[in-house]
Amino acid sequence: MIGPTGGSGTPEARIEQAMRRALAASAQVHGSTSPNPPVGCVVLDAAGEIAGVGATAPPGGPHAEIVALHEAGPRAAGGTAVVTLEPCAHVGRTPPCTDALIAAGIVAVHAALPDPNPLAAGGAAELRDAGVAVTLGTLADEVARGPLRAWLHAVRTHRPHVTWKLAATLDGRSAAADGTSRWITGPDAREQVHALRSTMDAIVVGTGTALADDPALTARNPDGTEQARQPLRVVVGCRDLVAGSKLDAPDVLHVRSHDPDVVLGALRERGAVDVLLEGGPRLAGAFLAAGRVDRVLAYLAPALLGAGPAALAEAGVGTIGDIRRLQIDDVCRIGTDVLVDARPVAEQQEKGTA
Amino acid sequence: MIGPTGGSGTPEARIEQAMRRALAASAQVHGSTSPNPPVGCVVLDAAGEIAGVGATAPPGGPHAEIVALHEAGPRAAGGTAVVTLEPCAHVGRTPPCTDALIAAGIVAVHAALPDPNPLAAGGAAELRDAGVAVTLGTLADEVARGPLRAWLHAVRTHRPHVTWKLAATLDGRSAAADGTSRWITGPDAREQVHALRSTMDAIVVGTGTALADDPALTARNPDGTEQARQPLRVVVGCRDLVAGSKLDAPDVLHVRSHDPDVVLGALRERGAVDVLLEGGPRLAGAFLAAGRVDRVLAYLAPALLGAGPAALAEAGVGTIGDIRRLQIDDVCRIGTDVLVDARPVAEQQEKGTA
Ligand SMILES: NC(=O)c1ccc[n+]([C@@H]2O[C@H](COP(=O)([O-])OP(=O)(O)OC[C@H]3O[C@@H](n4cnc5c(N)ncnc54)[C@H](OP(=O)(O)O)[C@@H]3O)[C@@H](O)[C@H]2O)c1
Ligand SMILES: NC(=O)c1ccc[n+]([C@@H]2O[C@H](COP(=O)([O-])OP(=O)(O)OC[C@H]3O[C@@H](n4cnc5c(N)ncnc54)[C@H](OP(=O)(O)O)[C@@H]3O)[C@@H](O)[C@H]2O)c1
Repeated sequence: MIGPTGGSGTPEARIEQAMRRALAASAQVHGSTSPNPPVGCVVLDAAGEIAGVGATAPPGGPHAEIVALHEAGPRAAGGTAVVTLEPCAHVGRTPPCTDALIAAGIVAVHAALPDPNPLAAGGAAELRDAGVAVTLGTLADEVARGPLRAWLHAVRTHRPHVTWKLAATLDGRSAAADGTSRWITGPDAREQVHALRSTMDAIVVGTGTALADDPALTARNPDGTEQARQPLRVVVGCRDLVAGSKLDAPDVLHVRSHDPDVVLGALRERGAVDVLLEGGPRLAGAFLAAGRVDRVLAYLAPALLGAGPAALAEAGVGTIGDIRRLQIDDVCRIGTDVLVDARPVAEQQEKGTA
Repeated sequence: MIGPTGGSGTPEARIEQAMRRALAASAQVHGSTSPNPPVGCVVLDAAGEIAGVGATAPPGGPHAEIVALHEAGPRAAGGTAVVTLEPCAHVGRTPPCTDALIAAGIVAVHAALPDPNPLAAGGAAELRDAGVAVTLGTLADEVARGPLRAWLHAVRTHRPHVTWKLAATLDGRSAAADGTSRWITGPDAREQVHALRSTMDAIVVGTGTALADDPALTARNPDGTEQARQPLRVVVGCRDLVAGSKLDAPDVLHVRSHDPDVVLGALRERGAVDVLLEGGPRLAGAFLAAGRVDRVLAYLAPALLGAGPAALAEAGVGTIGDIRRLQIDDVCRIGTDVLVDARPVAEQQEKGTA
């Protein structure tokens, strides 16, 4: 994991480069840290070279700073820690990172985001008291949109973060008139969804989807084998599943409710922070109507059906003034398809929340 | 219109630069030349400087080459003509451009595309016979996707080129449950549609849209005033329009048929080459089912409705194997919206044609 930071440039540029490396490290552990945040940390030695890179270990294991300091060893003395989240000062399951940074002789800390968690906050102040130069805000927006996004949302709202993923044609259909739907999107989009699943704490579908499609809801590799990390599988609705179907398994959570907040409460109890809602149309409509969708990932296939079930059913919108507006974070092409990454416009989300 | 080509670079780069200028000139006249092709031409003097720029005048007026040569005057002698389409050798309403180029002393011609029209072809050969160096193929793909696209299609298929424009939410709806639809897309997308209309020979809607929305179908400026160039307005369907409605006007063509080829035949008779199909869902479905959509422009608003009319109705697809696949030419953001510019996948189009 140790290597040069690449082209040197200004000190600020080196810090940003290190922050991007820390962000990339956090992406590697995205999905394995909840209820802890997926943090990344890079330790630069006194000469500005990368001496250690770390990311949050699974719950009970060390935080990112500790992993990076461990890798850096004595090279941390006089060095700089670049970390996606303000180092914690509290005693949780692990000793506070601030103590470890000070003990290792770190003289400067750059954190992208302040810790919004009142229990953990105070890390910057404690570091400053010990004479460490602390800078907050490096690449803050980029980091806030990254692996920490769901955790930040959960700390703020006390609810897991919900990403609704849909796959549809340009005319908004998710299956043909006879119900056939394999495949609407191409192999690249489908592979990306499997990678996305592996970063999630839970995957949720309604009984309608479970009964119609008998999906496995596992994160699979392109060769069909299961990925190492598997999220909790959740089915929502009052109907029983078919005995022997793929989701009729002891490790599947079946929430017999129609209330999104009951679902999210049950998920929160299990430590889930980052939740992928994979439909179907009615469950997604219920979450949208309740203001409980925080991110929309629309995989749109350049194709037309003209008939067949819509990707989204009743979402509480009767007239154009109540349309649920999103703002686009990103549009990109995934193989032959288009991915629109968007989030509800803030006021509306608040309206839904009220 | 005369000016430097900008940064000099290699001779090839200067020719490409001139071709882009010719392409831009042709875009200015797009919509005013049918049944003639919208061609652009740049004349470079012997030193390689732009001496004249021209584009096709309305039918009966001069071709692009003649306009550019006129602007260049004596500077054309020993110069180069850069033109989006092979100069014509036939005697149509105007004398052949080849003669004019030779008479002006042009020594080299670069054309993006060969003339596919057997009546006009032979221009390159005639120029070469006169000792002019002729190069075909400069920026051919770019030019073929530009203003000449519809005309090239019409020469090949003997049918006008049909662009279907739709505006929908990410879940494929074009109105809310109560029928309200103003506005789904934002002001930038709507402005672009008005600019698009002004490049078209005809705008087509079904009686359903005419009766439900009473649209004007005019190309308007952002301030609401009508643009100078207005395409033919066409309504398709057997029902009568409401007396006094905006499309109940003597200059509106009402085609009382359900057969897309009857519609296209009537348009062709009137010299229309480039046709914009603005819906609604049923008429668009009929054109798609018949293989008579050549380009899809999907303006997708980042918004969700969950109910309300779909942007596309019955298009002859019953099962996923018959899904109408498109290939994407471009995806871009227009203000707050996303524009997907796509065309039917070739084999399928042929299937529809058969
Ligand atoms: N293209 C895509 O992105 C995609 C993704 C998933 C599914 N699908 C398709 O969607 C189809 C299934 O549609 P669906 O709408 O029945 O699936 P669904 O939304 O997965 O399931 C509907 C069920 O969800 C339960 N539910 C929980 N809370 C609800 C609420 N507040 N309101 C309404 N229902 C609630 C109800 O279960 P109970 O009746 O048991 O109480 C309801 O019957 C399948 O054909 C599948 O292929 C498409
Ligand atoms: N968002 C968008 O992009 C968009 C664009 C346009 C319209 N719209 C909406 O669409 C709604 C109207 O829907 P619509 O489907 O009734 O509109 P439509 O497609 O414009 O009109 C349907 C009519 O087209 C005629 N037609 C011609 N050939 C046909 C064929 N082969 N098959 C079927 N019909 C054929 C029929 O007329 P006769 O019955 O008279 O024979 C039919 O009733 C309006 O509410 C409008 O707001 C949305």
